[in-house]
Amino acid sequence: MSVRGSPGLLTDQYELTMVSAALRDGTAERPCVFEAFGRRLPNGRRYGVVAGTGRLMELIARFTFDPDEIAYLVDRGIVDRATGDWLADYKFTGDIDGYAEGELFFPGSPILTVSGTFAECVVLETLILSVLNHDSAIAAAAARMVTAARGRPIIEMGSRRTHEEAAVASARAAYLAGFASTSNLAAGLRYGVPTAGTAAHAFTLLHDDETTAFASQVAALGTETTLLVDTYDIAQGIRNAVAVAGPTLRAIRIDSGDLSVLAHQSRQLLDELGAPDVKIIVSGDLDEYAIAALAAEPVDAYGAGTAVVVGSGAPTAGLVYKLVEVAGRPVVKRSENKATVGGRKTVVRRHKPTGTATEEIVCSQGAPEAQPNDRLLQRAYVVGGKIAESPTLDESREHLRQNLVSIPWEGLKLSAGDPAIPVTFVTA
Amino acid sequence: MSVRGSPGLLTDQYELTMVSAALRDGTAERPCVFEAFGRRLPNGRRYGVVAGTGRLMELIARFTFDPDEIAYLVDRGIVDRATGDWLADYKFTGDIDGYAEGELFFPGSPILTVSGTFAECVVLETLILSVLNHDSAIAAAAARMVTAARGRPIIEMGSRRTHEEAAVASARAAYLAGFASTSNLAAGLRYGVPTAGTAAHAFTLLHDDETTAFASQVAALGTETTLLVDTYDIAQGIRNAVAVAGPTLRAIRIDSGDLSVLAHQSRQLLDELGAPDVKIIVSGDLDEYAIAALAAEPVDAYGAGTAVVVGSGAPTAGLVYKLVEVAGRPVVKRSENKATVGGRKTVVRRHKPTGTATEEIVCSQGAPEAQPNDRLLQRAYVVGGKIAESPTLDESREHLRQNLVSIPWEGLKLSAGDPAIPVTFVTA
Repeated sequence: MSVRGSPGLLTDQYELTMVSAALRDGTAERPCVFEAFGRRLPNGRRYGVVAGTGRLMELIARFTFDPDEIAYLVDRGIVDRATGDWLADYKFTGDIDGYAEGELFFPGSPILTVSGTFAECVVLETLILSVLNHDSAIAAAAARMVTAARGRPIIEMGSRRTHEEAAVASARAAYLAGFASTSNLAAGLRYGVPTAGTAAHAFTLLHDDETTAFASQVAALGTETTLLVDTYDIAQGIRNAVAVAGPTLRAIRIDSGDLSVLAHQSRQLLDELGAPDVKIIVSGDLDEYAIAALAAEPVDAYGAGTAVVVGSGAPTAGLVYKLVEVAGRPVVKRSENKATVGGRKTVVRRHKPTGTATEEIVCSQGAPEAQPNDRLLQRAYVVGGKIAESPTLDESREHLRQNLVSIPWEGLKLSAGDPAIPVTFVTA
Repeated sequence: MSVRGSPGLLTDQYELTMVSAALRDGTAERPCVFEAFGRRLPNGRRYGVVAGTGRLMELIARFTFDPDEIAYLVDRGIVDRATGDWLADYKFTGDIDGYAEGELFFPGSPILTVSGTFAECVVLETLILSVLNHDSAIAAAAARMVTAARGRPIIEMGSRRTHEEAAVASARAAYLAGFASTSNLAAGLRYGVPTAGTAAHAFTLLHDDETTAFASQVAALGTETTLLVDTYDIAQGIRNAVAVAGPTLRAIRIDSGDLSVLAHQSRQLLDELGAPDVKIIVSGDLDEYAIAALAAEPVDAYGAGTAVVVGSGAPTAGLVYKLVEVAGRPVVKRSENKATVGGRKTVVRRHKPTGTATEEIVCSQGAPEAQPNDRLLQRAYVVGGKIAESPTLDESREHLRQNLVSIPWEGLKLSAGDPAIPVTFVTA
């Protein structure tokens, strides 16, 4: 397993130069509140998905600066010696509240609230945004694919299309969003995500012929495996697969061509060959639209790669981290067309008696007036520097599933549209 | 500094199940050649940029599997005990050749060639593609921004919009592509990329007023700093900046609004205030098109964030890793509309006597007929498992700069178009 050092230096330089200046002038200790939120959803998306907070808390727990890192910062004159000493002692002692992992969010939803001294809060900015922007982007794309798949399982297999560590986080986020499994082994070990994968075209090409390759795979992995049948001729590949593995073969996979036609033909051929229980897995540049287009075909599972790990058109969630309160006083940057509201927020989601969400109420400097069927959206992640117990990844996965059931049905449409529910800002 | 463990598990499960089956049937030891290439360039791009190979070689040098990782694989039944033992002893002993980092590539260019036994080559697939697909995508986007900036420096500041480790690799790739510096401190320490950054809006909001904030920043960082002037009113911000720091202030930064108009007005105001040497840095959702649109304005430097770390519309380079030769025999998957050619390739780029590139010649199983002004594009990265010395990041940066000068001028256009030069496949 990868042993990882401190994430302290995964930070923009200006966080530390601000600390440096604030330590000199005494403002470093001012009590502050920062909030992470998105001003808008990407590309006509109807909801965002909070993801990465579990991973983020693990990183914050060991967010420190090593001696060689501090030496680098001081030697280069990036920070002064006093700031170097402060970094050497760094430990976050404040509070972090926020939306649960797997919660939906909308424009303006304050998904993470960080309070403490200015200095201890500001140095976390880059890491908080990196983790939440990445993982939330992947989870939102994955959730749309899960909706499009209508209950059929999806295997995440996009590791090769993204940074090697982003791949692990992507596998985690996709599982959170309802994917069944991942090809990424590190995600299996680190996060307990179920893993899947059997063979590539190279395995068939390595052997003298396809039948030999299939026989070898079945000898090693048993008939509970998936044979990739499109290296040469798909119909012949299916015949070879059934001839080698028999009707108890778990599945065939098709990774190229017109998947709609091929799934249909393959199902027919498998049935004719007396293999009605052999499943059909399709893969190859599938996004939510391609998955939706296969709904009527005899497909049993999907493999999704590139589209999920690049957020299917929205590779970053667009979250920002803004100072909203200093010493109890709301602060806000002068903005044109930017609906930024100062002050610490408390948020409820309002529902009909039937359970359908109708609105999110974001209240600055107080709590919204309680109504029946309100649900408070914020939970405590860190209290006085101590990290609270988080839900498991499976619990967060179930939380998202329930959340997606609770929004108005238009919210699940794949087409571009408005946010599924409005967000209303009020002041207590 | 982050201590990192083995990257072995950053791998798709099927690489290891293929090894497992191949070890059983004896094909694991067959000599093979794999090539990494892109079938096409993304989105009408005119060139790709090879990036990440330096980083990749560091990862391959320590590509092993730790005991707890092997235990995980065996206990879950992902691989059998014999494969676990093989993984415990894993060390790549073959050869890797490829395009230099900073080389341009085009559809079909075999940018990395890996030869060795099937098993030792196939387990590297996921990591090779993750690194090259990510870093090359970032470098290509960054190179276009550098062209658009026409010699003005660009600071990379997108860490917060991408996975925290992808951020470090992005900063490296952007610097390779000609960016002047990065906000990412880990990239500074790990790769020697120059770092930059001074203060955010939060620093101004933290203080009782803007003048106090500016005075504090100048007290800490000197006048060789950049003051962010758009927290409240930009004209007043500039007046405050000059009043506090005087005409030796290095720069002001504007991060919002109509940058074209604001740059013009700000330059005029700075000149009126007797501060003609104070530079103007603009940032805020800049991509190559926005940078190009500012060419006529009095801008001294750009900050680019989101667009560069997400590849400005092309977040992955689309490279694949294909088995092209087994025991000296070319192999190829049957493909529709996929120009895949079997056999190990040797590649030259052909040039006019003036130095302008005209064509890339990719020769399968031999070398192209030599012509004057040909340049061989492949270098040895790994010989018999031993990693050869690589050019420094600065040398690769210079290599790319020269490469971009060598292609026909249409190749540098930002608009969608054909690859800058054609790639011709020949057989020896």
